[in-house]
This record gives sequence, structure tokens and C-alpha cells, in this order.
Amino acid sequence: MRKLPRILGAQTISKTRLFHVEQLDLEFSNGVVVQYERLRGSARGAVLIVPMLDTDTVLLIREYAAGVQRYELALPKGRIEHGEGIIEAANREIMEEVGYAAHTLRHITSLTVAPGYLSHTTHVILAQDLYPCTAVGDEPEEIEVVPWKLSQLNELLQCDDCTEARSIAALFMVKELLKNER
Amino acid sequence: MRKLPRILGAQTISKTRLFHVEQLDLEFSNGVVVQYERLRGSARGAVLIVPMLDTDTVLLIREYAAGVQRYELALPKGRIEHGEGIIEAANREIMEEVGYAAHTLRHITSLTVAPGYLSHTTHVILAQDLYPCTAVGDEPEEIEVVPWKLSQLNELLQCDDCTEARSIAALFMVKELLKNER
Repeated sequence: MRKLPRILGAQTISKTRLFHVEQLDLEFSNGVVVQYERLRGSARGAVLIVPMLDTDTVLLIREYAAGVQRYELALPKGRIEHGEGIIEAANREIMEEVGYAAHTLRHITSLTVAPGYLSHTTHVILAQDLYPCTAVGDEPEEIEVVPWKLSQLNELLQCDDCTEARSIAALFMVKELLKNER
Repeated sequence: MRKLPRILGAQTISKTRLFHVEQLDLEFSNGVVVQYERLRGSARGAVLIVPMLDTDTVLLIREYAAGVQRYELALPKGRIEHGEGIIEAANREIMEEVGYAAHTLRHITSLTVAPGYLSHTTHVILAQDLYPCTAVGDEPEEIEVVPWKLSQLNELLQCDDCTEARSIAALFMVKELLKNER
């Protein structure tokens, strides 16, 4: 494995409520020095949950996405709060966003979003043995819950409003996992 | 389909070489007014290429990822340059990053990265009928090319350095597509 570039210097060049931009001076192992910018995410990361109502039915949500100014169909997700564990955060998010809690929660992988310039990590949690249970989140409007069959994943990918890469990757991975466990 | 929130106001609150942060005042259809922040990406977007050396072998690259400060194994990708089409950008990127061009290039889907706060869109291009052809990019060091079998996708997902959600989603989608075309 190659030697990692050496960080010669790092400084915050912008900080807003949500975004923290850092400028890096990097020296690659071949001696080339380059200036990069990256976004620092929360060190705690985020969770993305695959809530299974039964062995084939996953609960998706349709929620407003400000980045693209449209409603997007995707898996429930959210930031891990201070003092919270990954599993606890996952269970809270599904209570807030889909109205269920889970008896069984499993961390199946961790994904990055755009590792070239974002430090964000998203932990993917498979939630099974669901039971109705709600909690109040900070959503500005009620979230629409959309049950979908994993056996119809290809049809989901034809929908114009289902584009989020982490959700698509997680759905394929869980489909594989559940198939192998059958 | 729900009525989209109305944008009451939008202003740039930070702009660095790479990042453009915008603050939005939004009014949801239920009357709730909320302030959001989002990152504006290039309106042209990016391309992510799935270069197939044969019907089972995909060419991955291992490249330094400043966001997570490690080398990541993923599909080649890059921004679309001014005046460039999607297909043209995809062919240029694989010449620069994997040393091949393609006779056949197909746009198979478009993914978002984090639609809640990023406007970025990534077009996924399947590249087939490859032939050796290189172009010089702006990479600070030589990129390692790693051939991998789509039939061993599950093994790839066990690798600690393969975490990027768009690449994982695109590999599953292309595997499905090629299976159905066989």
C-alpha cells in the first residue's frame, strides 16, 4: 500500500452553521505538493436505516431534499446525536421518520459519500422485527412512508425521484444479505 | 405529489475555490418556514464510469481521498468540463485515469450524493469495447488501476478501502444490467 500524503498544513477557511471548509497543503510521496479543500463532517457520522417490515418489504420515505429542490424517495437517515451510539441513533431515526422501532438492529457496513472532498461516514443499519412506535423529530412537515418490495428493486430504480446513491447501495447490499441468509 | 416548498429567499453565505454555500428561506406547503443551508455544485455535474475490460472484469482505481485521508478503491470519476458532453467527459476521464478509451459508452442512470444538502448530480456511464489510449490529467501522482470481477462483487465490499456509495450502487446496477442482457 502506498504511503499516505503528508499534511503540511490545515486551516479552516469557512465555517457556517452546517459546513466547515478546510484547506489542506499536501505532499504526496513522489514530492508533489498540492493544495486541497475538503468539508469536515461531524466526527460521529450519520446512520442510514433499512427498516424491513417483513422479509421483502422495506419502508422508504419521500422527503423534501433542499440540495436538488424536489421530493426524494430514499431510506430514512440522520445524524448521530451527541452521546448516542450508532444503533440507538438508528432506532430513534426510524421512530421519528417511519413510525416504527426495531427489536433487531445490525450494523452491516459504513459508506462514504464523496471521500475525495467530504469526511462524512454513513453507517448502514438493517432494522428487523419492527413494532409501531413513534418519536417526534425536527421535520418541518409529515414524512410520507412508502413501502416497497426488495423483489421490485429494479422498478424502484426507474423512478425519477429515487437517485440517492447510499440508499441504492444499501438496498442492493441488504437484498444480497437476506438472500444469502434464507 | 406534494407541492414543493416555496423559496422565499436565497443568498450565498460562503464561497471558496471549491465550495459554494447557500442559505435558503423555505416555506413548506403547511406554512412552516425553515432556514436551510445547501452546497451548490457545478450545474454540469460529474461522471462516474464503469469501464468493462470484458463482460466480467471492471477497472477500478485506487486513489488518494483527501476527505477521509486514505486511499480509496472506487470507479473512475470526474467533473464535466465546460463545453463537454457527458459521454465525452466519461471517455476523457477513463483515458486519464485507467489508460483506456471506449468504443461504446452508455448513460445508464444519474445519482445524487446527499440530495438533502448537495445539489451535485453524477451521471453513471457504462464503457465497453475498450482500447488502450491515454491522456494526461491533473492527478498529482500515478493512479493504481485494479481489475476486479463483477462476479466477486461481494468480496470487494469486504475491503476496508471500498466504501464510496456511488461506486457500489453503480457496480450493482451494471451487474444487473449485464446479467439481463446476456
